Amino acid sequence: MILDQKKKILVVGLGLIGGSYAAALSSGGYEVGGIDASPEAIAYARAHGFISHGQNEVTADYVGDFDILVFALYPHVLLSWIEEYAAFIKSGALVTDVTGVKTGVVDRVQEMLGERAEFVGAHPMAGREVSGVQNADPSLFRGANYIVTPTDTNTEQGILLCEALGRAIGSGSVSRLSPKEHDEMIGFLSQLTHCIAVSLMTCKESRQLVDYTGDSFRDLTRIAKINEKMWSELFLLNREELLSQMDLFLERFRELREALAAGDCETMMQMMRLSTERRKYFDKK
Amino acid sequence: MILDQKKKILVVGLGLIGGSYAAALSSGGYEVGGIDASPEAIAYARAHGFISHGQNEVTADYVGDFDILVFALYPHVLLSWIEEYAAFIKSGALVTDVTGVKTGVVDRVQEMLGERAEFVGAHPMAGREVSGVQNADPSLFRGANYIVTPTDTNTEQGILLCEALGRAIGSGSVSRLSPKEHDEMIGFLSQLTHCIAVSLMTCKESRQLVDYTGDSFRDLTRIAKINEKMWSELFLLNREELLSQMDLFLERFRELREALAAGDCETMMQMMRLSTERRKYFDKK
Repeated sequence: MILDQKKKILVVGLGLIGGSYAAALSSGGYEVGGIDASPEAIAYARAHGFISHGQNEVTADYVGDFDILVFALYPHVLLSWIEEYAAFIKSGALVTDVTGVKTGVVDRVQEMLGERAEFVGAHPMAGREVSGVQNADPSLFRGANYIVTPTDTNTEQGILLCEALGRAIGSGSVSRLSPKEHDEMIGFLSQLTHCIAVSLMTCKESRQLVDYTGDSFRDLTRIAKINEKMWSELFLLNREELLSQMDLFLERFRELREALAAGDCETMMQMMRLSTERRKYFDKK
Repeated sequence: MILDQKKKILVVGLGLIGGSYAAALSSGGYEVGGIDASPEAIAYARAHGFISHGQNEVTADYVGDFDILVFALYPHVLLSWIEEYAAFIKSGALVTDVTGVKTGVVDRVQEMLGERAEFVGAHPMAGREVSGVQNADPSLFRGANYIVTPTDTNTEQGILLCEALGRAIGSGSVSRLSPKEHDEMIGFLSQLTHCIAVSLMTCKESRQLVDYTGDSFRDLTRIAKINEKMWSELFLLNREELLSQMDLFLERFRELREALAAGDCETMMQMMRLSTERRKYFDKK
């Protein structure tokens, strides 16, 4: 199967990410349907042209009509959806997702789908500090990274189709990682940074500090506005990996603290030189 | 004394901050002189109109000609400069600085100056990830916070003059804090955030992660590019305060870590709700 505009695409879960995904595909000329438990979300998505049609109920007739299915649900909802409704999916369909953690998700979905349909896990790395279809935006993924996390059970054709979807929603860079590599990377670059921002923001009642706040504190805590249900679920799904990343950070932070306590200027400067050097890699070209 | 264009202003130390300070005043029509140990810095500042004249040597004739003196030096250099050359300063002059830590600086400078000149500490809260007069910019302070840190020994007239200087360089908001309040605030909002960024950036050789990096990691580590000599000196000057801010952060970070390790979703969500709530104060209007 290749991605062309004859393929009918179903987006399950019309929140910020699902809504944006649907909107990007619709504006690219694809026929997109939607399923969401909320009548308001369906109505909003239809009214704004994010989907051509949609429904609240999961029915065999509707689900079975699509060649490609994109799941934008909380991880535990995705797993129970597949468990309950896998049989509704058209034989030979391509199934993908947007879940932020891959181990414990990709393998279980693939097992439940069996021979019926191919599941290729994917993670479009985009987000906002707001949620809901009302904040959906067809350009949300523009320029963002799109990571495909295939396993041994996937076909090259399925992976290529999933990558084509990533490009169709506007991603700037499409790459492949194993589920384990993905979760290690995301544990460090995204989950750990959110843990830091949340911890810092909960340190003190800081309202009186607003007038003195420069960009560094603002930049560092921007992601402290967080969807607590989604992120705590993602943290728990990636628990062992995230704990080890947190411990690594704790080790370095304590090292700096001990150097300061001991008046060990050389160790502090050494860490700062290293951080300066490494941060240069991340300057945008 | 009030601030008008008849006052002659000396900037001692023409790096990024001193150079920008001089440039902002010169472009506002003030006569600005400069002292810097580096002939290149003086030449650059003159060629770019940041100063009208300047010299490398500290001479009684030159220093004694100024009504207002602004020190933009490393803290320990400021202290030894005042110790050595206080007698050169015109009697009744106003002296101020840009130092990022105030306790241990303001009181000592005031003591050394005695009755000769009034020192009002100040901190223009602006910076860049680059240093040197070559990166100086007359608009560096535009819109930034400018904090004046008077003590009991200061006169209202001196404080008002120092505040007028802050407005003259373009600051968006001018406010007063005691040296201790300043250092507590800066320990949390600025020094702790730099400690976090440096610790995170030194966690691992991260070059291979660049392709997957989203804005959250970039934003959080922007300040990990750091002038190690200046910052380690500022950290040490504010050691007790910064240690207690680091410990506060460690406590919260460990609380989140333990909640994750225990699978205590409710505690994690509670912290995230609190951080979301508090971060809202900091949204720019």
